[in-house]
Amino acid sequence: MAQSAANPTAAMLVIGDEILSGRTRDANMHHLAGQLTAHGIDLTEVRVVSDDQPAIVRALNALRADYAHVFTSGGIGPTHDDITADAIGAAFGVHVGVRDDARALLQAHYDRQGSELNAARLRMARIPDGATLIENPVSVAPGFTLENVHVMAGVPSVFQAMVQSVLPTLTGGQPLVSRTLRMMRGEGDLAGPLGEVAAQYPDISFGSYPFQKDGVYGANLVLRGPDEAALDAAMAALEAALA
Amino acid sequence: MAQSAANPTAAMLVIGDEILSGRTRDANMHHLAGQLTAHGIDLTEVRVVSDDQPAIVRALNALRADYAHVFTSGGIGPTHDDITADAIGAAFGVHVGVRDDARALLQAHYDRQGSELNAARLRMARIPDGATLIENPVSVAPGFTLENVHVMAGVPSVFQAMVQSVLPTLTGGQPLVSRTLRMMRGEGDLAGPLGEVAAQYPDISFGSYPFQKDGVYGANLVLRGPDEAALDAAMAALEAALA
Repeated sequence: MAQSAANPTAAMLVIGDEILSGRTRDANMHHLAGQLTAHGIDLTEVRVVSDDQPAIVRALNALRADYAHVFTSGGIGPTHDDITADAIGAAFGVHVGVRDDARALLQAHYDRQGSELNAARLRMARIPDGATLIENPVSVAPGFTLENVHVMAGVPSVFQAMVQSVLPTLTGGQPLVSRTLRMMRGEGDLAGPLGEVAAQYPDISFGSYPFQKDGVYGANLVLRGPDEAALDAAMAALEAALA
Repeated sequence: MAQSAANPTAAMLVIGDEILSGRTRDANMHHLAGQLTAHGIDLTEVRVVSDDQPAIVRALNALRADYAHVFTSGGIGPTHDDITADAIGAAFGVHVGVRDDARALLQAHYDRQGSELNAARLRMARIPDGATLIENPVSVAPGFTLENVHVMAGVPSVFQAMVQSVLPTLTGGQPLVSRTLRMMRGEGDLAGPLGEVAAQYPDISFGSYPFQKDGVYGANLVLRGPDEAALDAAMAALEAALA
């Protein structure tokens, strides 16, 4: 794939039985992918695991060693199946406990609502030692960053708000830009010229994404790279080859 | 998570730069998850990797060692970025070449269409040694099964048709069934009683999936397990605890 060698890499870890059972369709991966691409960070791998501490720890330790950033979604609510904070603590080998600043945020929020900060809600103030909080403007209960791991909620509106809180704090690279050529011909007719032009522009990623529409085969040919002028030149060459 | 110990496990490997860049929103994971659950196979892990042979080989070899079945999507078309067959061959250490039965399927298809079976299309007849073909009633070019790895297309209509071709050939376990209780109260109010009832029914998975609707917090409480009578008893206990 056309990654800019200079861009930071990232992985995502989606935590949740509901995704794996087919009950819920994940929306956060697609959102994060677009946001990272726009910020110049290359999302390189995603894993989805169940609400199971050994599975979370194993995946997290593999990903945080391999990538500059790891973003997690899911499992930081108040219920018994919200085990992400403990799993992160176990992965890093650090203590997890109720933290005063997180508790204060929750206390003020539930006071305003006239609700009780009960034991279940207080679970959302349990933060691994050494982490910094990620602001949650939607529902207050914070996410957290521990080293290169950014732990966020699974509810899409909250996840998206936390991404907005975290991304500006991270150093990005050169955003990839893209050009798309939509062809109403089957990939089998396009593949030869496409491959030849792709070989001439090694710094640009050439992707072919086939579709069927009303029984007709077509493909979107997508060129992706950091340099707009190079993209335009490659697109002109592709159009000429397919004319 | 509530897996039936007797059920076969499965993983999915999604192959494609377009998912990781945010260009395309994956639809196949959600489809496969629902189909496997209905068939009594527990989807336990999903990974998404880019069109990069070392990444595909590494993920595939990890997953096929850990799970009874691995399902892949993407990268088996005619273009230069379709590298899945070669990556599977590399992962298993077997030769990949044009196979007569696959070529015959394609030849008949393109003859009917009046199209040429050119070099690009012939790439779709390249199958690792030892594999069996997976029927593709949508667009003919086959997928394949090699040992416990089922290799399928990324285009959702084709992926779904291939899943329908493969699933009946696999031995499933007891399908998980579920019961859902929709509560218009915040998770923080539900979590205490929910956790207590969950502890009384260790063979049932209790999940809490929060939502916001028109500014009101609610949660779907989902009980999942193989035994309908046990689910009904647990649901009655949960309703009583939350009354």
